[in-house]
Amino acid sequence: MDLKNNLRTETGWEVIEKSFDPAQVVTTGSNFMIGNGYLGYRGTFEDWGPDEYVACIVTDTWDQAEGSSMSELCNVPNGLYTALRVDGEPCSLNPASIRDYRHQLDLRYGVNTRSVVWEGQNGQKIAWESRKFASSHNPHLLVQRYRFKALANGVVELKTGISGDVWSLGGEHFSQCIPLEFANGLLALSLETRETGISIAVVEGIRLEGKTPEKVWTSTEGKSIFRIFRFRMEAGEDVVFEKVVGITHSNEVEEPLRSAREEVSDALDQGYEALWTAHSKPWEAFWDGADLQIEGDPEAQVLARFNLYQSYIATPTHANLPVGARGLSCQVYQGAAFWDQETYNLPMFAFTHQEIAHRLVAYRYDTLDGARRKARKLGYYGAFYAWTSGKTGDELFPDFFFTDVLTGRPIRNHFNCWQIHISPDVVYGIWLYYQASGNWEFMLEQGAEVLFEVAQFLVSRVHFKMDKNRYEILRVLGPDEYHENVDNNAYTNYLSQFSLVKACQVFDRMKEEHPGRLAALLEKTGIPARAREDWNDIADRLYLPAPDPETGVIEQFDGYFGLEDIRPDALRKRLIDPGEYWGWPNGIAVHTQVLKQADVIQLLAMLDGFPKEVLTANYEYYEPRTEHGSSLSPSVHALVACKAGHHEEAYRYFLESATIDLYNASKKVMSGGSFLGGIHTAAAGGVWIIIVRGFAGFELTDAGVAFSPALPAHWKTLRFALKVRGCRLEVVLSPNGIRVHGAPENPGKIHIRLPGAQAWVGPGETLGV
Amino acid sequence: MDLKNNLRTETGWEVIEKSFDPAQVVTTGSNFMIGNGYLGYRGTFEDWGPDEYVACIVTDTWDQAEGSSMSELCNVPNGLYTALRVDGEPCSLNPASIRDYRHQLDLRYGVNTRSVVWEGQNGQKIAWESRKFASSHNPHLLVQRYRFKALANGVVELKTGISGDVWSLGGEHFSQCIPLEFANGLLALSLETRETGISIAVVEGIRLEGKTPEKVWTSTEGKSIFRIFRFRMEAGEDVVFEKVVGITHSNEVEEPLRSAREEVSDALDQGYEALWTAHSKPWEAFWDGADLQIEGDPEAQVLARFNLYQSYIATPTHANLPVGARGLSCQVYQGAAFWDQETYNLPMFAFTHQEIAHRLVAYRYDTLDGARRKARKLGYYGAFYAWTSGKTGDELFPDFFFTDVLTGRPIRNHFNCWQIHISPDVVYGIWLYYQASGNWEFMLEQGAEVLFEVAQFLVSRVHFKMDKNRYEILRVLGPDEYHENVDNNAYTNYLSQFSLVKACQVFDRMKEEHPGRLAALLEKTGIPARAREDWNDIADRLYLPAPDPETGVIEQFDGYFGLEDIRPDALRKRLIDPGEYWGWPNGIAVHTQVLKQADVIQLLAMLDGFPKEVLTANYEYYEPRTEHGSSLSPSVHALVACKAGHHEEAYRYFLESATIDLYNASKKVMSGGSFLGGIHTAAAGGVWIIIVRGFAGFELTDAGVAFSPALPAHWKTLRFALKVRGCRLEVVLSPNGIRVHGAPENPGKIHIRLPGAQAWVGPGETLGV
Repeated sequence: MDLKNNLRTETGWEVIEKSFDPAQVVTTGSNFMIGNGYLGYRGTFEDWGPDEYVACIVTDTWDQAEGSSMSELCNVPNGLYTALRVDGEPCSLNPASIRDYRHQLDLRYGVNTRSVVWEGQNGQKIAWESRKFASSHNPHLLVQRYRFKALANGVVELKTGISGDVWSLGGEHFSQCIPLEFANGLLALSLETRETGISIAVVEGIRLEGKTPEKVWTSTEGKSIFRIFRFRMEAGEDVVFEKVVGITHSNEVEEPLRSAREEVSDALDQGYEALWTAHSKPWEAFWDGADLQIEGDPEAQVLARFNLYQSYIATPTHANLPVGARGLSCQVYQGAAFWDQETYNLPMFAFTHQEIAHRLVAYRYDTLDGARRKARKLGYYGAFYAWTSGKTGDELFPDFFFTDVLTGRPIRNHFNCWQIHISPDVVYGIWLYYQASGNWEFMLEQGAEVLFEVAQFLVSRVHFKMDKNRYEILRVLGPDEYHENVDNNAYTNYLSQFSLVKACQVFDRMKEEHPGRLAALLEKTGIPARAREDWNDIADRLYLPAPDPETGVIEQFDGYFGLEDIRPDALRKRLIDPGEYWGWPNGIAVHTQVLKQADVIQLLAMLDGFPKEVLTANYEYYEPRTEHGSSLSPSVHALVACKAGHHEEAYRYFLESATIDLYNASKKVMSGGSFLGGIHTAAAGGVWIIIVRGFAGFELTDAGVAFSPALPAHWKTLRFALKVRGCRLEVVLSPNGIRVHGAPENPGKIHIRLPGAQAWVGPGETLGV
Repeated sequence: MDLKNNLRTETGWEVIEKSFDPAQVVTTGSNFMIGNGYLGYRGTFEDWGPDEYVACIVTDTWDQAEGSSMSELCNVPNGLYTALRVDGEPCSLNPASIRDYRHQLDLRYGVNTRSVVWEGQNGQKIAWESRKFASSHNPHLLVQRYRFKALANGVVELKTGISGDVWSLGGEHFSQCIPLEFANGLLALSLETRETGISIAVVEGIRLEGKTPEKVWTSTEGKSIFRIFRFRMEAGEDVVFEKVVGITHSNEVEEPLRSAREEVSDALDQGYEALWTAHSKPWEAFWDGADLQIEGDPEAQVLARFNLYQSYIATPTHANLPVGARGLSCQVYQGAAFWDQETYNLPMFAFTHQEIAHRLVAYRYDTLDGARRKARKLGYYGAFYAWTSGKTGDELFPDFFFTDVLTGRPIRNHFNCWQIHISPDVVYGIWLYYQASGNWEFMLEQGAEVLFEVAQFLVSRVHFKMDKNRYEILRVLGPDEYHENVDNNAYTNYLSQFSLVKACQVFDRMKEEHPGRLAALLEKTGIPARAREDWNDIADRLYLPAPDPETGVIEQFDGYFGLEDIRPDALRKRLIDPGEYWGWPNGIAVHTQVLKQADVIQLLAMLDGFPKEVLTANYEYYEPRTEHGSSLSPSVHALVACKAGHHEEAYRYFLESATIDLYNASKKVMSGGSFLGGIHTAAAGGVWIIIVRGFAGFELTDAGVAFSPALPAHWKTLRFALKVRGCRLEVVLSPNGIRVHGAPENPGKIHIRLPGAQAWVGPGETLGV
């Protein structure tokens, strides 16, 4: 079927670009990318360079370029560089020279293919096709098969190798870049990062089939190394080569260059088909756990899979590392974890692939010392997690992020010091994983320490207001970043209380069941046992902005209702420059009720227990005031719209969230002077949340699981699987009802509640209504 | 002697403009103004209009013009309007047509005189002179004697009356303006203010002497009414008229028009000489109490008197009304009281004219309900005094004050809600008056109520920080307005503690000596008796940033030392537009240590008890980081420089403070898009503080008074009088020593401490070293 934005799908498992559109180069490069959580390779073409945002972003390579205030992941040299010339004319892509263009992303296995027929200015004609994937079996490898066929006689020059001429957002990262050619024909660039001294190797090898070249030579050009093959070809002749690129670095292996050489040699020996077979198995396992099968809405089907695809390739599965806010699609947001990791990315993994979810929460444990350092640096104690968290958990977010486009002056944003909800959000994520997996040993070994340290941070962060007999949390930003520097932000206060309550619960259970381990943990952390009373006291007396008794609306922060009540479209007219940042300190939204995203909606999407009339009242109040300047916003709106009974709006927000990248619905490639392109990983994660928590109404309760479906009216069926406390559940929804089937291999019974029916469902049993 | 800025003095009692300079029209209009605390009349010329900033500002006429966000005092129609034409040519002032220009302000009696010889384009020649004062006897009256003399034959038209064509900063204030002509020849404009409905009458009458006019007629032009006299004059003939203008309004008298008519008729009957005699007596009394006589430095002499003069004419003595930050020199700062009133203006009156000081503190009592309303509106209780305080004490300062000159957008300044030190400052002023006067009955009747309500406000404003076992004061501005939104501002916290301690002291003395009056006060205010324990607890545990143990420097607010350490001149280079506001939210000083004025220096200038090494360390740290963007800054720097032993700098800052207006040393007529011209009343008050508290080292202690002089090296003598607890002290300092003489009429002894001598000094006795 045809999709928007010059796209179509055939089976719901692929996205096809209908024609070449140079204007969409940023978007298409992101959407058609391949990756494996270790590296991300943008969906760009083999002969492109920095102008077309070619990038191969490798995780765990953080480095700060000279003159930059930001650490970021390296974009490594492009080992898949390949260019053709026919009779001296470069086969450049431009609409006039292209025939039979096809560009496709296969979602099931993460394969990018394209084919082109090209005509030159002097009657040259050639066809080529390439097919590439980032191996899921060995994440260091990019594997490609490339074929070209002369459609007219001519001299064809194939230039292939490693291009070091790469885009880098923050500036040059490589203080060293040595081109190497090895006896067995491999080419390499051996690099070292400027600030962090990481050694990175990019090694490339090819295996050529078909016609023999008339001449072959190697060329070193600047920071690049290429091999050039010259063929004198007749119409109908073709050449095929298999290419393997190996990328390794010293944070992961002892000798990156040697490892990469060995891996590439070995892979070339195995050949494309063997590499493909190994690659395909992890993908099949992924879809077996996570696929969302939708009948009756082919567009929704491909959107769901596209977003699951992007979620998966953005997430490191080989190590405890963060999910970047733009995944590995570019360097934007520093390849680092934000609060999105717990609130948007984690849920899908927590209920489908708990081994991956475990990596994400273990990453937060691994970075606890960074959070402790941040707290101490700012005058607090306990753990204040980084707003922008890389390898160590030290704060990566700079003091000055956006630029005032009207004056050219940097803006002091306070995401790094006032957006304290990140710490409760980490607790929320740990609790979610723990609830889904039932992994109490993880809680004892790692989770409790995080919970206690976050509670301690909150002790050092709150203030007590004597005249009101309550604790308050002052000078924060909630998720709505247009309003910095606010007091008693509803989201922050509720989540903080949640964290304190969970810390007390875990403390109490440990005291009861594992007093020795509790004592050891307190001794290790230096937290006094009486701290638990402080946590409890703060949880009891922390001010939680309640729903207004008349309207049911919760005030987003102290004084919010007193701000100018204007709607986003009217407000937008006040912009002097469309690239202006709307928020702190003097953006157009600051003194108004217009929100980047609605904190109260976010809160209602995450914490259960609010009555439906409160959900409805808040949805109806905040929705018209929300600008959705954040890609995170539509998915929680979809979810709360579901809960509030606004089904059409829920579906509209679902579409909005699911198409932010694919349809290029987020226009903000630039904001406040910063390039913000790339894949919106949180929105991708949000699509699963909307479908499973919203449309299927899935809820994890202390008793078990519950569903209260609100399926879009035109969907015939929705099928998916869930993993809850060791049990696999297969869920099928239709307009007529819902069936939940316990997999035969399940270790025991699980309690299921459906509208009008509930039961303990054992292995191989089904509950339906 | 010659002074700077085109000025000179002859006796130290006058300022003379050496030649007419059209470029100085704003400055000269302010400097040469006359007034009496009820009205201020700028030192402009009789035929000028709004372009030359002619103004007659009348206190207690607050009104908000349509479309303005600010209430301000009215500039009433100009009853002293007079213009001459000779042979049809207006006698306009321009350098080419002026001969023998003289313009003088007599400081002793507040008289503005000028004389001009004017030549026309066709040989016309005429001389005129005018002499005017604002009566100190009847403050409703402006009195003028005007004489012109033909120096060549010609037809002279004299046009005199009331011009309603006036400058108004915030817009039109008069919804009604009725011109009237009365049978006895008086002219009037009867006005009504648009928002507040105040009736204002401006009545004018003249008494003509000398040559009889050939023709007389009345002319109503727009909002003006004039009488025109035509004279056919021969060279040598002259005409003299006396003119009286009466200005009354319905906030003060029942029937303004009738009162003004009667007062003007009566005054014209009395005649100029009688009016002058009555006027001169209050001035003689003022100087008897307040004069600062300096021998050996004629420039300092006239500067001291000029600033005393401006302090006096800015201060309402007829009613309990505020001293405006620009006095009555223009509408800037809304004619309203700021914290300057207590910290800069009050001290001179408290120690020289306690009946005037009493009016100022009684004004704060009268406006207590406004302060209570402000506190309640912002969610506090007790009394939060207005940052900008007019008649009622309700907050007059708008949310948006400055404009971002780079974008044209209004800036949300938080002077009105975060600059809480105003409340402790009011307490400081009340305590100062009480200490100087010993007026315990005032404290019982009025002062205690203010102290208690301010203490209650602080109870509702502070936060307790559990982990640090201390109270904190968050989200404030100190006097340094470049740094809004700071925590634990040293000035604010110390002054708040001062207030709480004084509230406890007064509470305890009342409990001991006047338990019934205490009980009545608590009942009246609804303050529970246990509140005193809260005040005490907060005073005990309020965080006071201490001098750093190594450097002795007190941090201005939390995190100040971490800001960029740059000097004002280097910072200034970052301005894109010279009119930019430097402060909140994104002015160039915000993220730096550069200060508008140094809060710690202000603190050290006000509270005694800091050791000299702390004074020195802080002076030396903060002085180079201070931009002196506030006219208040130089005087406290002079004072603390004295105390810190930096005598040359003390004298330099004295000159700077004393010449801000006279030498037009403050260049900032415009800042952040706002007109800020006019007399800097606080700086005027500061001159007395520098000389008496700095150079003479006067200090009021519990025991009595003390002096530790640091006279500028070239001063031969400094003489002044002080009034302390009923005693008049006459002080004479010279490089050789100091003598303090108790006036014969003193009611008792007073303890005096000098360097190396101390004694109880009785009536007629002298202590000297």
